[in-house]
Amino acid sequence: MSEFFPNVPQIKYEGRDSKNRLAFKYYDPQRVILGKTMEEHLTFAMAWWHNLCAVGVDMFGAGTADKTFGAQPGTMSHAKAKVDAGIEFMQKLGIKYYCFHDADIVPEDPTDINETNRRLDELTDYLLEKTKGTGIRCLWATANMFSNARFMNGAGSSNSADVFCFAAAQAKKGIELAVKLGARGYVFWGGREGYETLLNTDMALEQDNVAQLFRMSRDYGRSIGFKGDFYIEPKPKEPMKHQYDFDAATAIGFLQKHGLDDDFKMNIEANHATLAGHTFQHELRVCAVNGMMGSVDANQGDMLLGWDTDQFPSNVYDTTLAMYEILKAGGLRGGLNFDAKNRRPSNTPEDMFTAFIIGMDSFALGLIKAAALIEDGRIDAFVKERYASYETGIGAKIKSGTATLEECAAHAAALKAPADPGSGGQEYLEGVVNNILFGSAG
Amino acid sequence: MSEFFPNVPQIKYEGRDSKNRLAFKYYDPQRVILGKTMEEHLTFAMAWWHNLCAVGVDMFGAGTADKTFGAQPGTMSHAKAKVDAGIEFMQKLGIKYYCFHDADIVPEDPTDINETNRRLDELTDYLLEKTKGTGIRCLWATANMFSNARFMNGAGSSNSADVFCFAAAQAKKGIELAVKLGARGYVFWGGREGYETLLNTDMALEQDNVAQLFRMSRDYGRSIGFKGDFYIEPKPKEPMKHQYDFDAATAIGFLQKHGLDDDFKMNIEANHATLAGHTFQHELRVCAVNGMMGSVDANQGDMLLGWDTDQFPSNVYDTTLAMYEILKAGGLRGGLNFDAKNRRPSNTPEDMFTAFIIGMDSFALGLIKAAALIEDGRIDAFVKERYASYETGIGAKIKSGTATLEECAAHAAALKAPADPGSGGQEYLEGVVNNILFGSAG
Amino acid sequence: MSEFFPNVPQIKYEGRDSKNRLAFKYYDPQRVILGKTMEEHLTFAMAWWHNLCAVGVDMFGAGTADKTFGAQPGTMSHAKAKVDAGIEFMQKLGIKYYCFHDADIVPEDPTDINETNRRLDELTDYLLEKTKGTGIRCLWATANMFSNARFMNGAGSSNSADVFCFAAAQAKKGIELAVKLGARGYVFWGGREGYETLLNTDMALEQDNVAQLFRMSRDYGRSIGFKGDFYIEPKPKEPMKHQYDFDAATAIGFLQKHGLDDDFKMNIEANHATLAGHTFQHELRVCAVNGMMGSVDANQGDMLLGWDTDQFPSNVYDTTLAMYEILKAGGLRGGLNFDAKNRRPSNTPEDMFTAFIIGMDSFALGLIKAAALIEDGRIDAFVKERYASYETGIGAKIKSGTATLEECAAHAAALKAPADPGSGGQEYLEGVVNNILFGSAG
Amino acid sequence: MSEFFPNVPQIKYEGRDSKNRLAFKYYDPQRVILGKTMEEHLTFAMAWWHNLCAVGVDMFGAGTADKTFGAQPGTMSHAKAKVDAGIEFMQKLGIKYYCFHDADIVPEDPTDINETNRRLDELTDYLLEKTKGTGIRCLWATANMFSNARFMNGAGSSNSADVFCFAAAQAKKGIELAVKLGARGYVFWGGREGYETLLNTDMALEQDNVAQLFRMSRDYGRSIGFKGDFYIEPKPKEPMKHQYDFDAATAIGFLQKHGLDDDFKMNIEANHATLAGHTFQHELRVCAVNGMMGSVDANQGDMLLGWDTDQFPSNVYDTTLAMYEILKAGGLRGGLNFDAKNRRPSNTPEDMFTAFIIGMDSFALGLIKAAALIEDGRIDAFVKERYASYETGIGAKIKSGTATLEECAAHAAALKAPADPGSGGQEYLEGVVNNILFGSAG
Repeated sequence: MSEFFPNVPQIKYEGRDSKNRLAFKYYDPQRVILGKTMEEHLTFAMAWWHNLCAVGVDMFGAGTADKTFGAQPGTMSHAKAKVDAGIEFMQKLGIKYYCFHDADIVPEDPTDINETNRRLDELTDYLLEKTKGTGIRCLWATANMFSNARFMNGAGSSNSADVFCFAAAQAKKGIELAVKLGARGYVFWGGREGYETLLNTDMALEQDNVAQLFRMSRDYGRSIGFKGDFYIEPKPKEPMKHQYDFDAATAIGFLQKHGLDDDFKMNIEANHATLAGHTFQHELRVCAVNGMMGSVDANQGDMLLGWDTDQFPSNVYDTTLAMYEILKAGGLRGGLNFDAKNRRPSNTPEDMFTAFIIGMDSFALGLIKAAALIEDGRIDAFVKERYASYETGIGAKIKSGTATLEECAAHAAALKAPADPGSGGQEYLEGVVNNILFGSAG
Repeated sequence: MSEFFPNVPQIKYEGRDSKNRLAFKYYDPQRVILGKTMEEHLTFAMAWWHNLCAVGVDMFGAGTADKTFGAQPGTMSHAKAKVDAGIEFMQKLGIKYYCFHDADIVPEDPTDINETNRRLDELTDYLLEKTKGTGIRCLWATANMFSNARFMNGAGSSNSADVFCFAAAQAKKGIELAVKLGARGYVFWGGREGYETLLNTDMALEQDNVAQLFRMSRDYGRSIGFKGDFYIEPKPKEPMKHQYDFDAATAIGFLQKHGLDDDFKMNIEANHATLAGHTFQHELRVCAVNGMMGSVDANQGDMLLGWDTDQFPSNVYDTTLAMYEILKAGGLRGGLNFDAKNRRPSNTPEDMFTAFIIGMDSFALGLIKAAALIEDGRIDAFVKERYASYETGIGAKIKSGTATLEECAAHAAALKAPADPGSGGQEYLEGVVNNILFGSAG
Repeated sequence: MSEFFPNVPQIKYEGRDSKNRLAFKYYDPQRVILGKTMEEHLTFAMAWWHNLCAVGVDMFGAGTADKTFGAQPGTMSHAKAKVDAGIEFMQKLGIKYYCFHDADIVPEDPTDINETNRRLDELTDYLLEKTKGTGIRCLWATANMFSNARFMNGAGSSNSADVFCFAAAQAKKGIELAVKLGARGYVFWGGREGYETLLNTDMALEQDNVAQLFRMSRDYGRSIGFKGDFYIEPKPKEPMKHQYDFDAATAIGFLQKHGLDDDFKMNIEANHATLAGHTFQHELRVCAVNGMMGSVDANQGDMLLGWDTDQFPSNVYDTTLAMYEILKAGGLRGGLNFDAKNRRPSNTPEDMFTAFIIGMDSFALGLIKAAALIEDGRIDAFVKERYASYETGIGAKIKSGTATLEECAAHAAALKAPADPGSGGQEYLEGVVNNILFGSAG
Repeated sequence: MSEFFPNVPQIKYEGRDSKNRLAFKYYDPQRVILGKTMEEHLTFAMAWWHNLCAVGVDMFGAGTADKTFGAQPGTMSHAKAKVDAGIEFMQKLGIKYYCFHDADIVPEDPTDINETNRRLDELTDYLLEKTKGTGIRCLWATANMFSNARFMNGAGSSNSADVFCFAAAQAKKGIELAVKLGARGYVFWGGREGYETLLNTDMALEQDNVAQLFRMSRDYGRSIGFKGDFYIEPKPKEPMKHQYDFDAATAIGFLQKHGLDDDFKMNIEANHATLAGHTFQHELRVCAVNGMMGSVDANQGDMLLGWDTDQFPSNVYDTTLAMYEILKAGGLRGGLNFDAKNRRPSNTPEDMFTAFIIGMDSFALGLIKAAALIEDGRIDAFVKERYASYETGIGAKIKSGTATLEECAAHAAALKAPADPGSGGQEYLEGVVNNILFGSAG
């Protein structure tokens, strides 16, 4: 097998003197943090689509990067070259997981889904063979039910029952591939499940049908031995005007309403969180509070832009607070998939590696700092003290659900006016975070 | 009783030649639309706070309007003068309902909630006496659990159990007043129920406590004979960084999770919808789909501004599509409360009336146009045709919940590739809307 | 020549009974409004790119519409078929103008710009021949200096002087084509003139270079007899993080700074205005105030979405207020180019016509209503009265620029406190607008 | 003089072991960075309004903090107590500068501006006396021309010539105070200079009048010996729908158009930048490129909220990139004024100090890191190499402004197709930033 990235060496942890170019500065896989190795905490995955398929096309411009890997795009040879290149890429970075849509790994046959499925069988055979003994496996699989023109009006929420059936067929095949490849999870991102205009939309029917697709998929998956989690990936909009899985709270409510919350968890994407008007940390907290923490699509958006930029994560405040939520929740059931793409002008093979290094290093640093925040203890202590009034007296009754409105009102009447509830201390807590992040600043 | 608006006459429907100043152009209370009078469709209410209390203060400037009504602010005399002025105002406009927070109708006693409650009794006695025989009544009551400094860290979600009890005490009194005044509903707007920073927040405890407050209030309300709906009023942010009732989907999910969805419905505010990234129509549709359509806070925001401007509604596209949703859902259980304030420089008494006229006329026009859209039938016909594939064959099985993933996949395999799902027709439907709105354009 | 839209008849003004499908309801070309025909007021143009080239691709999905017109995409045959189809399209709608980028009308040769230029000559010969006698002509030409990968770091603002030269070469050819085709204008839309990250950007050099490109283009254009306006088309962002022509104020300031404001005017796009945080009307007013009103890219965005949706204009409030500004400014030097695309699921040939009909009708209705607002006179009268204090006394001195700070301060000292400046009357004015828009509401 | 903050000690630099509570961790005034002390680089100022006046009122709630300082608000005794408390506050933090509006330092007389001016004389006498020998002085003065109801329709842009004169009178007095107090600058923040609705607005007249006010103020200031800079403080919106000084580019263009750019510079506020859709760094770069770098209002907003939160700056990415721009531009002519307020629930005196400590430390850390980025040199080297093509050949001609369009086109024609312009390297550069910010991560 030829080398696809001949100018890029094995990426190593080279410690603190590094120039940060083609070496990890913070990600040391075997370093132990809070009792587990970094590698165990940070289940990094490569996204097939962004890394092996995408060439830098945007709505106003053509591709800038070459992802041919020596083969003709649109062929099975190219599909296999991507497997080979992907494995080399992951091995050079020490990444053990990948994620993919069906349409990422083989060219779809435009006229016959049966032929597409045959190609999927062939390619996954090849993939299993090539990854054998490498330790590389699938984090999660999914079906691309948004790019094909047939999904222009939705997949599970399509107005066409025929199209719904194609979504079902792709989900069925996707779940089978997840089982075959030993994936931890199976994801639904409902890119077209929503509407362009309410004027033409039967929202009740569409949402019921989406729930139906989830139920059928769950039932089928369990029937063939799929033991992993199903994940919903919330996103508020883009490409649709409105997507039904707007944010974690919406998606969790939907799952609870339809009795799907045992089998489905959330796959939270940082950039989707901010498009919905939330912080990444917020979405993770909502999951934690509801027992729905599943997996993470690790990236970052630009807070001043209104579309998904899917940048590689580099903001260590964000990665620290994300890892803080993840550690507090006992870790992820899934992993950290880099649903991130190189900036369009970062079009060299070296840029592909640099981007993963910044992403992996930023999460490694976030892990180090989140653990330090927990060990430092000042935040936890502040929060504990802040809510102390719920541990005794009327507070304890409220917390336990045994207080009545009359009792509470009587308590207030006796007090006449309450004491000041106490400073929120935000500036102090932000100071603690900076203190931990920047320590001795040099 | 002296006249408070001596320069303003009784506002009448003067039909099509009007200059639209101090006369209704579209709101003709007795006109029948789809079998009910306009007045029955449009249960307009005056919001005490914006109309009788607010003087045009904003974050950067002092009041510009005089709302003393001849009395000294902060006194019970002033509180009663507001009753008198409010009744005159409503009568001149033909408005039959009002909404209020406890703190709108009496000055709070800063040191003793019992004295505040005594004032509430006195004032509501006065209000009942003054409205007797006028046909004026309360649409809904609520407690202001956000302005007082004690709620700086939340009310039901306060870190202080004592403060929680004051929220409970205010809710108890508020529900009692709702019963006393014959209100259709009781509203919770959780202006401070959320967080400023996750760093100091125990979200799980706070949300459980909010649910607890709702439960206690429901139980107490039902025990004293309150038959109306409780309403949640979603808003995403402002004044807090994040409010737990972010939008309708979030609030409905919360109510369903806590088993409160029988007693609680939504009070949808147009400006809150847009701050959450949704259209007003969207939020109403979400309510309709979930059987949660309650009441409406009628106003409009500025789509380019990131805060609640609470402008009087004037955009007839929006009022038409709102009334379209409301008519389709069988009407509102509550009403249309103008949670709207004059623009700060609109500081004359005449402006107060002009603002209500534009608001009432815009909703009246919206009702006329929504009914016309329904009678026209082109939109309904388009939607019916669009989803026709779910009425037979595999579509019908999907819709009825009896299809399996295997069946659907087999259907797709047999088709090999589906037919185009059909144009969404958005431009056509927008043309229909314009056609109905503007008819013969003159 | 074969017919490309055999199922679509000539679109006519059919008056008030129309079902608004494939007929104009408001656009009656020969109707006279304020002394000119509708056709003279509304210089509608078809955008080559959206109408003849774009197939519904978005960032998450493949094309949905067929624009092959019986030929093989990427060939000169296809380029010519688009000419033929475009002429049929324009004639069926009665549109007399078109706009195009170089890359819209011929396939670019990836290896030799000279060959591309040869194709441009051939194609424009063909275009001139085919439009001879039809009355169809070019509104404005432009060069696509953003799609080709070479422009990934900018065109006039590229870090590469070679790439700058390709931008210059395309601008030169574009201006030559504008002259050849008798265009009214030549547009620069700087889609890549900005930055992705300030970390790698020499903003001073980049902006100077862009000004340099404008100067060179102006000098060359004038030297070959181009008499039209050059237009800048402001847009704040997308595809770049920041574009230098952020909005009208920014672009006008830039032109004034570089002494280019005599030759350059603005091409204002509605959707770009809202992405910059402004209304369409605002951007037009800024142009009017600065004598920079040039041309308009007529479309509309979705106020809740953060990217360019380029929808066909249908909101009659917006078209009315735009036409109000245009009429007040004495009309456009350029025209109304529909830089608008069908919604992705509106993928039939009939949808192409329906979209233009809604766009043209919405502007025709806007024209009718804007003229009615002017003839009604209430808004003008209100504004005149509002600023009356600048017509006499100290106000007149201030307005004429002859007052001093001391004089003004002395005036204030004598007054001690000023009278209330008077209600802004926003609700009243919004009522007037509704009154004119909806008149007798049916 | 009594002590106002008896529980707060002198705040010192206590180095790296600090718990960051009531001690500086990074701000060491005498530490030398790039040849100047930290104190010289960082001209910190206290804003009278937020620190000594504001009590935590927001649009939905009453004050939460006590700023009476033992006196009765609204009296001259209170005004003087604020001086005393302010001096103690500044001395305990080692802050040498303050900023103020006229209305912050004395209560306005509602009926007579002459009396207000007399109070200003009295108070500034007191202030000068109390600061004598302390090293404390005024960074800049300004007049509050937005809070008083008379400015509801604007100040320099008011529809009332009388109100314009009151703006002029306040500006005159404000400039006199600036001279008296030895201020470095005089600021105009045009909070009401804009519009609520274009329907009632004569934008041309309003903008000309604002320019007139600036010209008069400049002329008067220079006539009485004011040697400092005048500053414009851009903000896009809030409280108005639109403010004329939308952002730096707009304000600079306005000043250039009116020939005011020699005397006026920019006062850039971080939170205003983000409300306008720009980064703080962007606005500073725009100033630097135009020679308009004046002063800074140091704070930060919440990127997910649409209003001015004026939080104390804590994000070290932002402070580093801001200081990077400032260092590159040769420093500020003005200083770093904390136009920042405690979060509403941070209502203790200790919180006031904690907030300044996080703000000062964050800028100190930003200075340290910005200097390290410059000394590291990788960013500079990358940028230099990136634009190298403009140093020779056709690039040098373009840069020098001597190239023609024909020459550039000929260069392109000879090349036929250009080489790839080279990777933008964003991920690499972000890695460099993290590497410098976090160094050895512990």
